[in-house]
Amino acid sequence: MDTLSEQRCFDGLQGRYTHTSTATGTTMNFGVYQPPQAARAPVAALYYLAGLSCNDETFMIKAGAQRLAAELGLMLVTCDTSPRGLSLPGDSDHWDFGVGAGFYLDATRAPWSAHYRMGRYINDELPALIEAHFPVRRDRRGICGHSMGGHGALVTALRDPQRWHSVSAFAPVCNPGNAPWGQKAFGNYLGEDRSAWARWDAAELMAAQAHPAEFLVDQGAADKFLERELQPQALQAAATRSGQKLRLRMHAGYDHSYWFIQSFIADHLAHHASTLLA
Amino acid sequence: MDTLSEQRCFDGLQGRYTHTSTATGTTMNFGVYQPPQAARAPVAALYYLAGLSCNDETFMIKAGAQRLAAELGLMLVTCDTSPRGLSLPGDSDHWDFGVGAGFYLDATRAPWSAHYRMGRYINDELPALIEAHFPVRRDRRGICGHSMGGHGALVTALRDPQRWHSVSAFAPVCNPGNAPWGQKAFGNYLGEDRSAWARWDAAELMAAQAHPAEFLVDQGAADKFLERELQPQALQAAATRSGQKLRLRMHAGYDHSYWFIQSFIADHLAHHASTLLA
Repeated sequence: MDTLSEQRCFDGLQGRYTHTSTATGTTMNFGVYQPPQAARAPVAALYYLAGLSCNDETFMIKAGAQRLAAELGLMLVTCDTSPRGLSLPGDSDHWDFGVGAGFYLDATRAPWSAHYRMGRYINDELPALIEAHFPVRRDRRGICGHSMGGHGALVTALRDPQRWHSVSAFAPVCNPGNAPWGQKAFGNYLGEDRSAWARWDAAELMAAQAHPAEFLVDQGAADKFLERELQPQALQAAATRSGQKLRLRMHAGYDHSYWFIQSFIADHLAHHASTLLA
Repeated sequence: MDTLSEQRCFDGLQGRYTHTSTATGTTMNFGVYQPPQAARAPVAALYYLAGLSCNDETFMIKAGAQRLAAELGLMLVTCDTSPRGLSLPGDSDHWDFGVGAGFYLDATRAPWSAHYRMGRYINDELPALIEAHFPVRRDRRGICGHSMGGHGALVTALRDPQRWHSVSAFAPVCNPGNAPWGQKAFGNYLGEDRSAWARWDAAELMAAQAHPAEFLVDQGAADKFLERELQPQALQAAATRSGQKLRLRMHAGYDHSYWFIQSFIADHLAHHASTLLA
């Protein structure tokens, strides 16, 4: 693991790092904000998964989360949205597929299956790396994400509920198997077998089995992707089916941007803190 | 004036706009954050001037200021750091001169003098535009900036103290006539007459005449530009000479970045609010 930068922020430390990932077979960058409390004792970490075309820096720069993390004593961890630097055929032809669009799953179709293994990267490799190198508790982890990363956060937590103790999302892709972005990605990464898709689809997973924590999901009502790509009603229906505790909030006038995220990030950090710091 | 974008943020409105400037003879973009209070009655505006290589979007994206502006009921206004799109000879050869480096002064040397008139743009044209198109008070204005923009904020307020009622800066270029960035810019924009430089130099202006408000200046002690370019001790000396009220704070471990700015932006907005909302 190499340090790209470390800078003081709210009396904590904003860092960017790089390492070679076993899961993806590539160099991966990630970001860590260490709150001031981490200088004295291990703190709980909140992992954040960004959306299409973003990278490990987007949330750290745009969400305004560090102030609250410093107040609460939460570590923030961000990662990239796909492997990079591979030049696989067609990996940069579309903004919603390939580079910047890994969908936080483990691809099973060639050529993606050799590198696009973001599922195990997020669930296993990155937490192991963070817990080996940073002053962080190993018994409490939170996960949050936006859009494609909201899908990633929900799916990661639902697939491994013992590992992820608190969960939230901004404008998640709730039912990718029934939405154009998801269908394109899943078809390419996973092939045409719909049963394989269901194992990476938040609405499908949630309908089958509730996670022990209450999920917080915020959605802007003026989000142009709402009906076609995001479909929070599918998540609501799945929650009803399995008994998942879900606080789904619609916000009039808000769109899909980080202006929306920063407006409600305080509620998300408080949501995670209520579980992680309990 | 044309609207480039308007998006909901903290129940207010984050907007980006464009207009043709009389001062610069070019199209200029600017940003306005309208807090929710502006929907009911005119609010006071705080103008922010960015540093070298930044533009009208930098502060709005990176400083985390909207949350506080929404709480306090302050409008935020940002502008660009120079005219753009001119292709004057040499205007893009250096990151610290020309495009992105207008130094918020009125150039007197050709070819800059025809367009690089950011001084009058900031002091006159932009406030007139804002006050004509947005629900803003005309009797209270604050100004703040970072680095080159900190120089701009201090100089603008000191040159026209009746127009600017509250003043603060992050890591300002305090005495550009004695610093490499400033000497390069002033020599090119203003020529070699040092008496012309003094009219755009915060330390020189402050030494000659105090502004009625107390200035707040924050500086990171780990800022790599501190000794060579920024020289806050020159501002302190000038304040002592004229009796200017100056709260100059040094912050151990902080550098020149927006991680530093976001760490202390709350204090700056509170400083401006204490005058603008009194």
